[in-house]
Amino acid sequence: MFKEKLSIIKIGGNIIEDKTTLNAFLKLFSNLEGKKILVHGGGKIATNIALKLGIESKMIHGRRTTDAETLEVITMVYGGLVNKNIVAKLQALNTDAIGLTGADINSIKSEKRPVKEIDFGFVGDVKKVASNAIDKLIKADFTPIFCAITHDGNGQLLNTNADTITSQVAVGMSEIYETSIYYCFELNGVLQDFENKKSVIKNINSESYQELIANKVITDGMIPKLDNCFDALNNGVSKVYIGNASILTKENEFFTTITI
Amino acid sequence: MFKEKLSIIKIGGNIIEDKTTLNAFLKLFSNLEGKKILVHGGGKIATNIALKLGIESKMIHGRRTTDAETLEVITMVYGGLVNKNIVAKLQALNTDAIGLTGADINSIKSEKRPVKEIDFGFVGDVKKVASNAIDKLIKADFTPIFCAITHDGNGQLLNTNADTITSQVAVGMSEIYETSIYYCFELNGVLQDFENKKSVIKNINSESYQELIANKVITDGMIPKLDNCFDALNNGVSKVYIGNASILTKENEFFTTITI
Repeated sequence: MFKEKLSIIKIGGNIIEDKTTLNAFLKLFSNLEGKKILVHGGGKIATNIALKLGIESKMIHGRRTTDAETLEVITMVYGGLVNKNIVAKLQALNTDAIGLTGADINSIKSEKRPVKEIDFGFVGDVKKVASNAIDKLIKADFTPIFCAITHDGNGQLLNTNADTITSQVAVGMSEIYETSIYYCFELNGVLQDFENKKSVIKNINSESYQELIANKVITDGMIPKLDNCFDALNNGVSKVYIGNASILTKENEFFTTITI
Repeated sequence: MFKEKLSIIKIGGNIIEDKTTLNAFLKLFSNLEGKKILVHGGGKIATNIALKLGIESKMIHGRRTTDAETLEVITMVYGGLVNKNIVAKLQALNTDAIGLTGADINSIKSEKRPVKEIDFGFVGDVKKVASNAIDKLIKADFTPIFCAITHDGNGQLLNTNADTITSQVAVGMSEIYETSIYYCFELNGVLQDFENKKSVIKNINSESYQELIANKVITDGMIPKLDNCFDALNNGVSKVYIGNASILTKENEFFTTITI
C-alpha cells in the first residue's frame, strides 16, 4: 500500500539555546517539503530558570530527576516559553504550527517510571501514541510541534525524554505514513574519532553497531540515542538520519544513516 | 440558517489560583454539553513567579504593562504551567482538550498596542480570529483551551486581555455557530450593591447599562468587562452570562444576563 511521507525532526538543547542557531534551523525546517513533525526539549534554559527560582537540578547517572517543583519549571519552559516561541516564529515563516504536549488531544500517554534503585520522580515512559488524533492535525495542514512532556491520563504531566518521544511518535505514525526520523544535534553525525568532527560514520547497521560498541567508538549518551534509532527501525520507521541541522537540506555530505 | 450551539467560557484568576476551585470548575466544564471553548488568564501565579525571578510587575492605570522579561514569564505561566495542567486535568475528565495561544494554528492575530501616553509594552489588541482554523479542531472533537497570549504574525507573542480574547473569539465563531459567552468570576453576577453578594442584577441591557453607569452602580474594572459583552452581542454573539462557575449548570438562580 502506498503511504505518504512524513518527517519527524528532533532538535536538541544546543539548537534551542542559541537564538541565531534556532532561527536558522526553523528556516530549514519550514522549507522542508512534505508533512512534518518537530520534537524539542528545553536544554539548559530549564536548568537556568530553575536555578533563578532556587530549585536545584538533580541528576542521577547523567539523567535529570524530576521533583514536583522541577516539573513545574519544565512545564513552564518546555511547554510555554520554548514551545510557544517556536510556534510564533514558524507562523512568521508560513508554517502553520501547533504546539503540543502529550496531554493535548491525548496524543502521548505515558506511565510514571516505577521506582527501583532510582526514583526519577515525575518522569514518564511512553505507552501509547494516538496516531489518529495526531493525524487529524496533520490532515488539517497543521504542523505539530511537540515538547518533551507527556501525561498519564489521570491529570499528571510527566517529563519525558525527547529522543524517546521522537522514536515513539515516528513508530506510531508509521501505521499511516512512511516515516523518516532526523535527529539534529551539534555534531555532523556519529563520529569515528570524537576529536575529529569530520570523521562521520556514514552508515551504521545493527551489525556494525555492536562492533562500534565493542570497540568503544560509541559510548555513554550515544548508546540510548542509537538504541532508540534501532527500536524505531525495527518497529516500522523507514529511515533514521543523525547529523547537524543541515541534514534537512541533504546538501551536506556529512551525516550518519542508520539502517537495520 | 440553523447553526449548532457553541459555548465560550472565560475563567478569571480566582478560579485558576486555587486548586480546589479549579478542579471543581473543570468538572462543571467537562460536564457541560455541546461544543465549547475555554479561555483563561494566569492571574497572580504569573505575578508570583515574576517576583521570585526578581522581575517587578509594572501596572499603569490598573493594567499590567509587559516588558520583554514579563512577557517571558507570562508565556511560561499562561502558555505552559496553567494551560498544560488544565489540559491534563481535562483529559482525566474525558474532555479531549487542546491548549492554544493565538500563535497556534495562527488562531488569533493581534497588533502590538501603539504607544500613546502609555507604553503597554508587549501587549496585543486582537485583529483577526481564524474561525475556520479553530473550527477544524472543534469539528475533530477537540476542545480548544486558550490562554491569554496572541501573536503579531511576525514571530512576536503578545500578552492579551483574556476578556477581549473571549469576546473576539465568540464573535469570530458566530460566523459558524450560535455562540454564548459565560464569564465566570468570583461573584454571583453584576451586583447592585457591592456589599451584598446576593444583590445580583438579573438582566442588563444597553439602556439600563447607561443608567447603571450614570448612577455609579457599575464602575471601574466592570466597565471594560461589560463593554466587551455589548461589543460581542452587537457583533453576532447570541447570549452573554456573568456569574460564578455554577452558571454552567444553570441551576443557580443568581447570575446576570446581558442583552441588547
